[in-house]
Amino acid sequence: MWVPSAAMMGSGEALGLSFSNDNVKGCVLALVSSAFIGSSFIIKKKGLLRAGVSGPRASVGGYGYLKEPLWWLGMITMVVGELSNFVAYIYAPAVLVTPLGAMTIIVSSILAHFMLNEKLDKLGILGCNLCIVGAVVIVLHAPTESSLTSVDEVWELATQPAFLLYTASALAVVLVLILYFCPRYGQTNLMVYVSICSVIGSLTVMSIKALGIAIKLTLEGSDQFVYFQTWIFASVAVTCIICQLNYLNMALDTFNTSLVSPIYYALFTSFTIVASVIMFKDWSGQSASTIASEICGFVTIFSGTTILHSTREADIPSPTDIYASLSPKVTWYIQGNGDSWKQKDEDGQYPDFPSSLRQDYF
Amino acid sequence: MWVPSAAMMGSGEALGLSFSNDNVKGCVLALVSSAFIGSSFIIKKKGLLRAGVSGPRASVGGYGYLKEPLWWLGMITMVVGELSNFVAYIYAPAVLVTPLGAMTIIVSSILAHFMLNEKLDKLGILGCNLCIVGAVVIVLHAPTESSLTSVDEVWELATQPAFLLYTASALAVVLVLILYFCPRYGQTNLMVYVSICSVIGSLTVMSIKALGIAIKLTLEGSDQFVYFQTWIFASVAVTCIICQLNYLNMALDTFNTSLVSPIYYALFTSFTIVASVIMFKDWSGQSASTIASEICGFVTIFSGTTILHSTREADIPSPTDIYASLSPKVTWYIQGNGDSWKQKDEDGQYPDFPSSLRQDYF
Repeated sequence: MWVPSAAMMGSGEALGLSFSNDNVKGCVLALVSSAFIGSSFIIKKKGLLRAGVSGPRASVGGYGYLKEPLWWLGMITMVVGELSNFVAYIYAPAVLVTPLGAMTIIVSSILAHFMLNEKLDKLGILGCNLCIVGAVVIVLHAPTESSLTSVDEVWELATQPAFLLYTASALAVVLVLILYFCPRYGQTNLMVYVSICSVIGSLTVMSIKALGIAIKLTLEGSDQFVYFQTWIFASVAVTCIICQLNYLNMALDTFNTSLVSPIYYALFTSFTIVASVIMFKDWSGQSASTIASEICGFVTIFSGTTILHSTREADIPSPTDIYASLSPKVTWYIQGNGDSWKQKDEDGQYPDFPSSLRQDYF
Repeated sequence: MWVPSAAMMGSGEALGLSFSNDNVKGCVLALVSSAFIGSSFIIKKKGLLRAGVSGPRASVGGYGYLKEPLWWLGMITMVVGELSNFVAYIYAPAVLVTPLGAMTIIVSSILAHFMLNEKLDKLGILGCNLCIVGAVVIVLHAPTESSLTSVDEVWELATQPAFLLYTASALAVVLVLILYFCPRYGQTNLMVYVSICSVIGSLTVMSIKALGIAIKLTLEGSDQFVYFQTWIFASVAVTCIICQLNYLNMALDTFNTSLVSPIYYALFTSFTIVASVIMFKDWSGQSASTIASEICGFVTIFSGTTILHSTREADIPSPTDIYASLSPKVTWYIQGNGDSWKQKDEDGQYPDFPSSLRQDYF
């Protein structure tokens, strides 16, 4: 096993490694986040299964799971994971952190294999391998972001003409989609809701990254909350998260999760990468070969995700693991809006889901 | 589309590109080879189908396909492809050429989709994408071999202690497999025959590469066939090819092609890469990051191949496309030993093969 030494970190160039200390932190945090979020699905499910044994099930109105310590442990694990993901964005470029969100599905698939007896078949193992290989390629070629010393600098990046143009186009596209396409094709074409979520998602990540940098600087002693820019980033973040979740729920409510998840992952990651490349100039100074490798790594992870979703259709981790690359609020919201899942569960839209577990989970 | 200019070729380092003029030639030749071999399967099948219309079928002893121009066109296409593959080994390292052999299956799958109406499903398309992405990663990170000026230099590389040790271990492993494991487990464990082919295959490629360099130098005016070393390489190449084909036929005769093909591809490529890395020192001077990327690219291609094989089980291109990365003789031999295929065809070992086409092909 090749372990990068501290000396290499600073001058990784000699080895062809472009990662910095900050990238290593961000990458480790993103992976820790995936491990926590991935295992939280399994722990919560164990809790729900156990609660279902002694009382009415969650799907028929039971709240027994609230008394189940395992379920609470799962919720805590998830919050820790989401926080870790949030901090990862502060250190490393979104181009690195966002694609690594796919590791969540690997962790939950592997844990489900051993702890819940939901066996991974050959294709599933292949999908896991692909996610890992793609992640390695992305990590090896990730760009290094120059560290920022004040929110003012982030504000300058956010108000550069190129990024303003991106934001304006994103908003225009979202408005057209919401006002024209939603009422006409929203219920029949999966791409409408998913595109809205993904485009807004790229703005969410950018504003969360800005907010994260502000919090980091504040904790380091330089209070950033005296600047109005920090509050603008905060309100943009909240607005974007609410919009994104609203349309994500509509997408998940209307279409099959195993279709929505990989497409959402691909679009969300793509738009986030585009936004990050424009705002933080991630790719400037990178060679064509490095950028091409990053894109290949992303395509590989996406393929792995698709394969895993196709083999674990309608399985539990699938619907929620896509939130791994968002803020803590996301998962809680889903938790509170679980009713749409119950309906789907009852009218049998997830035929592959083992009937013995079905009622317990939701 | 980014097109490398001639100026970049020589000093690709500045762009982070490690490929040389020779690597570009080798890569193009390997891809041309895959295109020819891949389409030869389709052309030959078209020829066999057409021959089957007007006379007794090949599978019941008919030789009508010998009068069919399309079948001959297919054979010529295949020979051109194999020659091109052979020449590719002269220019580029085996680490680059061998994995690209997987492109054959993409070409034949895509052509089969359009010309033979054997539709690629979603997983098939995903498999194709993975093969392409993996190939791009490998090409971007391929090492550059120093060009050799005489067979004597190749001989020195082949007789360096490290490579002699590899050859000795390879021969020892093969002998143990043939003498001890074949009689006991050959008919029940797929790995026995496939391992023999793969280990010998790595020696085949090395000797073919040495022979190719000798032919190239001879054509350039410096006769290499006056050296006894050239004749040793030639006889090693012939011996290895015959052994390899013998055990490959036994493997294909005993086990399902859709299992043999991807495992053989993975093992054969792995051993060839190891042999090439030892003999030609392909990885010396490469960074850990580049080597890791190459391995990731190879794993990605392998996964793509596995997916394609799993979706196109028992389809025609599968059994033979694995020979793409060998010498011209390979395909001819298979052609001459087609009887084993006929048997399989008749006792229905290929259940997925459309019955309307079954009898025609073999």
